[in-house]
Amino acid sequence: MVNEPSVVSISPRERALMDRLVSLSSSSGSHSPSLATMQLEFPELEVEVDACFLSNPLATDLFWTHFNRDVLEDPQLFKRMLEAYPSQNRVIASDLSPALGIDAGRLFIANGATEAIQAIIQNFSSHVHINVPTFSPYYEFAGPDRKVTRYQLDATESFALDPVHYVQSVLRSGADTAVLISPNNPDGYLIPDNDLAWILGKLASVKTVIVDESFIHFADRDSSGTRRFGALPTLVGITEQFDNVTVVKSMSKDFGIAGIRAGYAIMDPARVTRLLAQGYLWNSSGIAEYFFSLFGRPVFLDEYRKVLNTYRATIERFKTTMSCADFVRTYPTDANFQLMQMPLGVSADMVASLLLVRHGVYVRACGDKVGLDGEFIRVAIRTDSENSKVLAALKDVLSSI
Amino acid sequence: MVNEPSVVSISPRERALMDRLVSLSSSSGSHSPSLATMQLEFPELEVEVDACFLSNPLATDLFWTHFNRDVLEDPQLFKRMLEAYPSQNRVIASDLSPALGIDAGRLFIANGATEAIQAIIQNFSSHVHINVPTFSPYYEFAGPDRKVTRYQLDATESFALDPVHYVQSVLRSGADTAVLISPNNPDGYLIPDNDLAWILGKLASVKTVIVDESFIHFADRDSSGTRRFGALPTLVGITEQFDNVTVVKSMSKDFGIAGIRAGYAIMDPARVTRLLAQGYLWNSSGIAEYFFSLFGRPVFLDEYRKVLNTYRATIERFKTTMSCADFVRTYPTDANFQLMQMPLGVSADMVASLLLVRHGVYVRACGDKVGLDGEFIRVAIRTDSENSKVLAALKDVLSSI
Repeated sequence: MVNEPSVVSISPRERALMDRLVSLSSSSGSHSPSLATMQLEFPELEVEVDACFLSNPLATDLFWTHFNRDVLEDPQLFKRMLEAYPSQNRVIASDLSPALGIDAGRLFIANGATEAIQAIIQNFSSHVHINVPTFSPYYEFAGPDRKVTRYQLDATESFALDPVHYVQSVLRSGADTAVLISPNNPDGYLIPDNDLAWILGKLASVKTVIVDESFIHFADRDSSGTRRFGALPTLVGITEQFDNVTVVKSMSKDFGIAGIRAGYAIMDPARVTRLLAQGYLWNSSGIAEYFFSLFGRPVFLDEYRKVLNTYRATIERFKTTMSCADFVRTYPTDANFQLMQMPLGVSADMVASLLLVRHGVYVRACGDKVGLDGEFIRVAIRTDSENSKVLAALKDVLSSI
Repeated sequence: MVNEPSVVSISPRERALMDRLVSLSSSSGSHSPSLATMQLEFPELEVEVDACFLSNPLATDLFWTHFNRDVLEDPQLFKRMLEAYPSQNRVIASDLSPALGIDAGRLFIANGATEAIQAIIQNFSSHVHINVPTFSPYYEFAGPDRKVTRYQLDATESFALDPVHYVQSVLRSGADTAVLISPNNPDGYLIPDNDLAWILGKLASVKTVIVDESFIHFADRDSSGTRRFGALPTLVGITEQFDNVTVVKSMSKDFGIAGIRAGYAIMDPARVTRLLAQGYLWNSSGIAEYFFSLFGRPVFLDEYRKVLNTYRATIERFKTTMSCADFVRTYPTDANFQLMQMPLGVSADMVASLLLVRHGVYVRACGDKVGLDGEFIRVAIRTDSENSKVLAALKDVLSSI
């Protein structure tokens, strides 16, 4: 049963649906059920906006345009992608390396960033120190055989990372692995360049420091200290300064292609060699290989930069609107989502359920996020019209309770 | 330099190409370079038949037909597969389990069989006992931290597995993991049902016994002892009789969709739980999930059985032709490929290179296969017309040296 204040007026139909929704969410572990799963379980619900889904919808369209253009030119291209064995990991890394401006030997191609996270933690870590709240695979994939300790981020500090306290916490923990996600999920806090450089310098003695930059394209981050490809910020250069640093990058969010499963990690070449010597042989699909080849085309990256800028402008408009909104407490974000705290006594599960049942708006209730005290939802920033729908729906739901 | 008898007449152009081919092959490790890599490196070569590639070409066409039909009905279907997060491992397992007639809890969905092999070896094994020659990931993925011992199959016995000697060898080795591939790659030997049942009974004390049935659809195997789905033979039922047995299955070969990366393993439910508790969260792509959903449709399986029977008839014609061929020594096979031994003093690398350079026929030279003494090539059985080209080319090359 969803716990709610007695003043809320909820119809029996709504209540029954809400209970089923909460039950589906808990059976999906620490990740929200996919939209497809949701629609299969609740055919009676029409999901109008998937604001659970953290991706740039314009980038999906761009990929789609290029794919269809290439298939039109070479009608057998797609069938070959399905039929033939894709290239091995090292071959794809060689193709991608010029676009990233990094040696192919430092590049581990992954079946989505989650595979890279799993590979790193399970091969190079015995004790992971992790900031919470954050993306749960970093501690889940540690499994029962590895130690996990935590550094608690503080909502009253807007989840900002205090470099001095953080470094003390890592060193005191004795962990051989520290994880920094910037911008962090679910709060969107971006570690400033100077802080990050200082932290990495202080953690040089820690065996593995993971920097996850999966959301970095959405940040307003333009400092000269970072390596840039196609005018996109990236931290890949850091791995050349610090042997112990591994950069993890999902392609799902910025390129809008979560279904393709594409990601990579950049690390010391000896570690790539170790991983590839015992697996990850054909871990990219034919379509993932095609995506990586697109990534290497300057024309594609130019067009991508344009749609990224358009999307960034949408993100900025969303943030401006929210900065004036008084119906919910928000936290500053440098990613394409915003964390929102529910008013005292209001359950995030209830708000998320009502958003879905009454307005067809699917958001992420964060009740299962380790280290997140209080009632939060995370709202993905989509297109202007979708964002307006989400905010109107949220205002409506919150005003009714 | 390719080593060849002095009598062979090879032009300087051929010689230069052959040297580059051998060098590309050695840089690809223990797997042949993909056709795409080959064509990228050798744009001057026209590959007419890829007889390296072990798949049913008719099944690829069947998948392609269904895919295009479904996309025609729902034009957004494919874009959604690319954009949205696919379902989690357990959700796909639940969808597939009725078609296999096995509990979803026993089913581990994999990004190709190689991922399943890697997961099993790296999570449940410390010492692998493996028949050689065989599919190399079984020993490669053991990595430096696990022991690997071997049971040598004998070419003079047509690579048949002697059950008594084999069981003695496993038990004597002290291995906690035994691997049986049936039909085996590269020789195509199928372990008879009675032998397999006897072996598994004797190995009940071994922690993990892997039975890889990736090529079993091509076998003329129809005994009543095996579980059957859609009239396709499978050993999945064995995992219910023996807790220690894991069945591994690639979808690439029989369904002709290597580029999609789809496979599964069936094992004790506690092992599936252990694997999923620490990874493999979104390891199927959207298209792989679509393929698994097709697999669950009786209409698709009916049509698949028909194209399988057509392809099997082609395989039988190929084998009949080869049984009369006197220009090369062959080995009996129950898979969709045939191992061929070169005449004394003739290098398999040279024959493979000449097949490619002179006839555009790409076959697998097996010089890198551990446990295969002598000079062998492995020829994939494709369509009738392709098979004719391959055999004519082989006859021509062998008669010229």
